[in-house]
Amino acid sequence: MKLAEARLTIVGLGLIGGSLAAGLHDRCAGLTGVDADPETLRLAQARGIVDQVDSDLRAGLAACDMAILAVPVGEILSILGRLGADLPTPRFVLDVGSTKSAIVSAMRDLPAEIEPMGGHPLCGKEASGLSAAEPDLFRDKAFVLTPLERSSDGVRLLAGEIIGAVGGRPFLLEAAAHDRILAATSHLPYLLAVTLVSSVAEIAASDPSAWDLTASGFRDSSRLAGSDIRMMMDILSTNATEIRKSIHIARDILEQLETALDKGDLTAIESRMRRARNYMEELRARQTAHTARSA
Amino acid sequence: MKLAEARLTIVGLGLIGGSLAAGLHDRCAGLTGVDADPETLRLAQARGIVDQVDSDLRAGLAACDMAILAVPVGEILSILGRLGADLPTPRFVLDVGSTKSAIVSAMRDLPAEIEPMGGHPLCGKEASGLSAAEPDLFRDKAFVLTPLERSSDGVRLLAGEIIGAVGGRPFLLEAAAHDRILAATSHLPYLLAVTLVSSVAEIAASDPSAWDLTASGFRDSSRLAGSDIRMMMDILSTNATEIRKSIHIARDILEQLETALDKGDLTAIESRMRRARNYMEELRARQTAHTARSA
Repeated sequence: MKLAEARLTIVGLGLIGGSLAAGLHDRCAGLTGVDADPETLRLAQARGIVDQVDSDLRAGLAACDMAILAVPVGEILSILGRLGADLPTPRFVLDVGSTKSAIVSAMRDLPAEIEPMGGHPLCGKEASGLSAAEPDLFRDKAFVLTPLERSSDGVRLLAGEIIGAVGGRPFLLEAAAHDRILAATSHLPYLLAVTLVSSVAEIAASDPSAWDLTASGFRDSSRLAGSDIRMMMDILSTNATEIRKSIHIARDILEQLETALDKGDLTAIESRMRRARNYMEELRARQTAHTARSA
Repeated sequence: MKLAEARLTIVGLGLIGGSLAAGLHDRCAGLTGVDADPETLRLAQARGIVDQVDSDLRAGLAACDMAILAVPVGEILSILGRLGADLPTPRFVLDVGSTKSAIVSAMRDLPAEIEPMGGHPLCGKEASGLSAAEPDLFRDKAFVLTPLERSSDGVRLLAGEIIGAVGGRPFLLEAAAHDRILAATSHLPYLLAVTLVSSVAEIAASDPSAWDLTASGFRDSSRLAGSDIRMMMDILSTNATEIRKSIHIARDILEQLETALDKGDLTAIESRMRRARNYMEELRARQTAHTARSA
């Protein structure tokens, strides 16, 4: 089935679901938006990014070819457990949740007639919710797909077409590798931001002006501490093992830095700093190359 | 002496020194720029933000009323040690270095005829160097002053007038409190960024695609790891004690998070996350209030 022939239902019209709706609504045979929040449904209709809306999950899934699950991981798991039971049986199911092992594992148990695919577009931004959604959110960003053995050619093609339609870069990965890597590149940055804010709070307990002396460096480094708690709790609970390993690596590095400062071994610290700066420069060069290729 | 009557010499035309020159050159009786880099001197003249330039520190300081030292902390300390010896004796000296205890301590030993003042404008940005300098860099930003007992009314007034001329918010603080607070709000974020990049590098050693799976959250959280190494080394070596304490606080918090994950105690983690998010919201409200007051 081609995207142009497919009726899509997007469950959850937040930043990701709303942006998918904005990018896909005129590329498919019909797009239904499902969200628990009536105001979000009104806004989606006002922006013209959905053909119809439904506050009821069962009704919204009733007549679609593909369900795109764009809610927090815990809710995705709950919906997967109900498909084909008290919820309808869409032919294709794609999720865009932030962790993949638990979801892919739940997808293995779906009724045989469902063709599932795990996905995760890497494109968060500071603002969340439908009001921040935009069709270009995925442009030139990695859109991870974690196919299952049972994922059909049909769902692979359709997922690829969706990524192409929103301008993303498809990135195939095992669910376990996704979770191992994202523990370091995404979940650890969040916990370090929480750690930074908590550390400044400890200093501010005796020096209240600490909060007044935060500048742009602190602002960027702490931004993720403002992330949605529900979403982050679902990530922590479904990727606890890998996140623990990442925290442990970070603690080891901080301990090395503290020990080197203790011993006045500035050379060791400088060498660590230079390596980090070199990685940053390589990464920037790599990202510039990506952008140049896609321009 | 009023700013309009003062001849200023700014030593170091990087981001901060260059921005001060851009904001002050038409508010004072004459502005000399000193920098070791001939290309920087040429650019400063081309931009018209200095009346004259000098690559020689002694010549540049010869006929000024106030020297503004805008070089890395180590170089500021070296210059302070030479004023009145093999360097001239400007009447007023203001520095804008990133740590204050070592500098204020060196200022105590200046020849008696010099009127010194410690300063630190909190306004870094991603880019550095004169090409990134702009007169509005300091607008609505905290500009810390750490006066010494020996700081005269004259230098206090002049420093205040300079901050007013560039639109900053003067913030009086003891040097020790500055260093204690900035260890948490500025130096720790840098080290956490280095830690994050180093952690991803460890994961990338076995999963090379890790670098491809970094998104905007990682980019913001890691940005400071690209900071100038020389500047950061000077900060680390002149604020080692307070920075060690900050690292230790951060390590404790990470250990609590790891232990809670180990024990599956998600409630403890969620409570830590909520507190951090609340601090972020309070800080944002406070900063919005600042901006509203100054509008």
